[in-house]
Amino acid sequence: MSKIESNRLEQFRKEREEANEKVFDLDHLGIKRFFNIDNNTYKDGALPGQTKELLGLVASTVLRCNDCIDYHLEQSAKSGYTKDEIIDALNVALVVGGSIVIPHLRHAVDTLEILEEEGHLDS
Amino acid sequence: MSKIESNRLEQFRKEREEANEKVFDLDHLGIKRFFNIDNNTYKDGALPGQTKELLGLVASTVLRCNDCIDYHLEQSAKSGYTKDEIIDALNVALVVGGSIVIPHLRHAVDTLEILEEEGHLDS
Amino acid sequence: MSKIESNRLEQFRKEREEANEKVFDLDHLGIKRFFNIDNNTYKDGALPGQTKELLGLVASTVLRCNDCIDYHLEQSAKSGYTKDEIIDALNVALVVGGSIVIPHLRHAVDTLEILEEEGHLDS
Amino acid sequence: MSKIESNRLEQFRKEREEANEKVFDLDHLGIKRFFNIDNNTYKDGALPGQTKELLGLVASTVLRCNDCIDYHLEQSAKSGYTKDEIIDALNVALVVGGSIVIPHLRHAVDTLEILEEEGHLDS
Amino acid sequence: MSKIESNRLEQFRKEREEANEKVFDLDHLGIKRFFNIDNNTYKDGALPGQTKELLGLVASTVLRCNDCIDYHLEQSAKSGYTKDEIIDALNVALVVGGSIVIPHLRHAVDTLEILEEEGHLDS
Amino acid sequence: MSKIESNRLEQFRKEREEANEKVFDLDHLGIKRFFNIDNNTYKDGALPGQTKELLGLVASTVLRCNDCIDYHLEQSAKSGYTKDEIIDALNVALVVGGSIVIPHLRHAVDTLEILEEEGHLDS
Repeated sequence: MSKIESNRLEQFRKEREEANEKVFDLDHLGIKRFFNIDNNTYKDGALPGQTKELLGLVASTVLRCNDCIDYHLEQSAKSGYTKDEIIDALNVALVVGGSIVIPHLRHAVDTLEILEEEGHLDS
Repeated sequence: MSKIESNRLEQFRKEREEANEKVFDLDHLGIKRFFNIDNNTYKDGALPGQTKELLGLVASTVLRCNDCIDYHLEQSAKSGYTKDEIIDALNVALVVGGSIVIPHLRHAVDTLEILEEEGHLDS
Repeated sequence: MSKIESNRLEQFRKEREEANEKVFDLDHLGIKRFFNIDNNTYKDGALPGQTKELLGLVASTVLRCNDCIDYHLEQSAKSGYTKDEIIDALNVALVVGGSIVIPHLRHAVDTLEILEEEGHLDS
Repeated sequence: MSKIESNRLEQFRKEREEANEKVFDLDHLGIKRFFNIDNNTYKDGALPGQTKELLGLVASTVLRCNDCIDYHLEQSAKSGYTKDEIIDALNVALVVGGSIVIPHLRHAVDTLEILEEEGHLDS
Repeated sequence: MSKIESNRLEQFRKEREEANEKVFDLDHLGIKRFFNIDNNTYKDGALPGQTKELLGLVASTVLRCNDCIDYHLEQSAKSGYTKDEIIDALNVALVVGGSIVIPHLRHAVDTLEILEEEGHLDS
Repeated sequence: MSKIESNRLEQFRKEREEANEKVFDLDHLGIKRFFNIDNNTYKDGALPGQTKELLGLVASTVLRCNDCIDYHLEQSAKSGYTKDEIIDALNVALVVGGSIVIPHLRHAVDTLEILEEEGHLDS
């Protein structure tokens, strides 16, 4: 197993996908519809999907959800935002949300480092 | 007094500015520095100030603060975002934050209507 | 105008409905779908709709949203819960959410009084 | 050691009980009274204790506390709610609290699976 | 009616007391016990009651509850904290809670001004 | 390696410091200024730094951030607060924030035990 496959983020991706499938398999119509809406939210609309990933990242950060932060960090990076742009977005979350956000900023910076090692993030 | 001067948003702007001055007049160094940082957060950086206003809007919406929503709606509109783009950003906040956000979405739509009447918002 | 038509709750109902229509008229597909899901959430399913109104009330109370509290109080009362049962549900919200919930408990008790005067609530 | 004794939930139960005892041993009157109130909240009253466990579950889910979710999931299951009913309650939490709740929904579904394996949950 | 009796804070005090009595009159044992615990929390213990009022103020501010802020501001002022000390406590809340706290800081400064006019606050 | 060096808290201190350095190395002016303000917040001012550490602890507890709780517990203990005083402060957080705070109270009591073993906390 390569270094990248065994990292924390790779582990999260697998567990997240498996767990999402279990949630889907519950076959609850309301939950399935919610997941469907959630996916569609970040597609191109009046705003490009890329911008909306960044909005999702900042929302996740001020609401202090590390799993959500990791997901939107990856999507933001893959959509083409550079590291500096993502950091600038996280700064908005820090100022709006306060020092209580700092542990999540530390987490985000660690995730960005992994994304960089994986080649998913432009400096 | 004209219709625009007497609207809810105009009232908010005046009270907000007066109250901010009172906070500044407290002459507490930490508070002054925080206000200074806050102002600088939305200036052009790695991301354009315009994008950061939209990030501030979504952060304010998921954290459910109407005064903050009104402030960032106005800044987002004045920075050139169209009504459709702002609505698309608010939709991200709605999906991330859930139905508890709906009363603030109703508030935001009312504010957008005033901004439109004032000529600050492009359809 | 009768006493009931002019009360705070009646005012809220009108403004809420009008504002919801404005939100709907934005014609944003994601927002419309979210509103649709939201409505369906409280219909009979594995749990009766009545129980889910009470769940919605407690969720709204710990998240401290007065508009949401008023809406679910009315739905809970109309679905047949007695005043004592609703108070018992609000107590769960108070204990889970802490003293910060107290101002919203005061608000809820005021709303229950109006619902009682209107004949929508059984003692 | 059997499979059940070594699972995540069993570990949580032990640690929770031990830690609660330590909190109790602090011998702070206010804290002891709070714990006492907390226990009494979920006993039969105007509403049956069973319903209040479900209210506690939804409150814990929108406030996004995994330990609280696990505790109330177990109590809800033991009180006789079926898996489908609990999922329907979690759907209310998802819609009220938004996509930020999804990681906690994934956690809850994993806990339900353990409760099912342990024989504490009816399908 | 004197100027002081007619101010916003005086109005809040009256409404708060009346509403608390209504909550008490519900005669729900759990709620009554919670109110009792809440009152006892701010009495002298290992920490002086004065310090705990300030803790209550900061907790209320980061949780963004204006009614709770007003209550603890008055108790903090009456317990002997000076305006400068209270402002210094609010600064902690601002930094921990972020710019989303600013509207509540503006509210608090307005309340402090009323308390000063009433003679309840030392400069 | 001694028992103390290998404990959970020691691990947290190292990781926190290393991660803070990485955040600093991002060289984002806004983030650096925020960290600078954050540090200055807890220095002697109108209130002694000691009191402000306790305010930071209660703010962190009601906002339910274990890393922030651990940091302020250590600072509060080192500044001279006794175990009983810190517990009395945590009780304020429990009552204001509700039973959702209990898992964080359990965490805090565990951290206090480590601080006691390390000789950083007076009984």
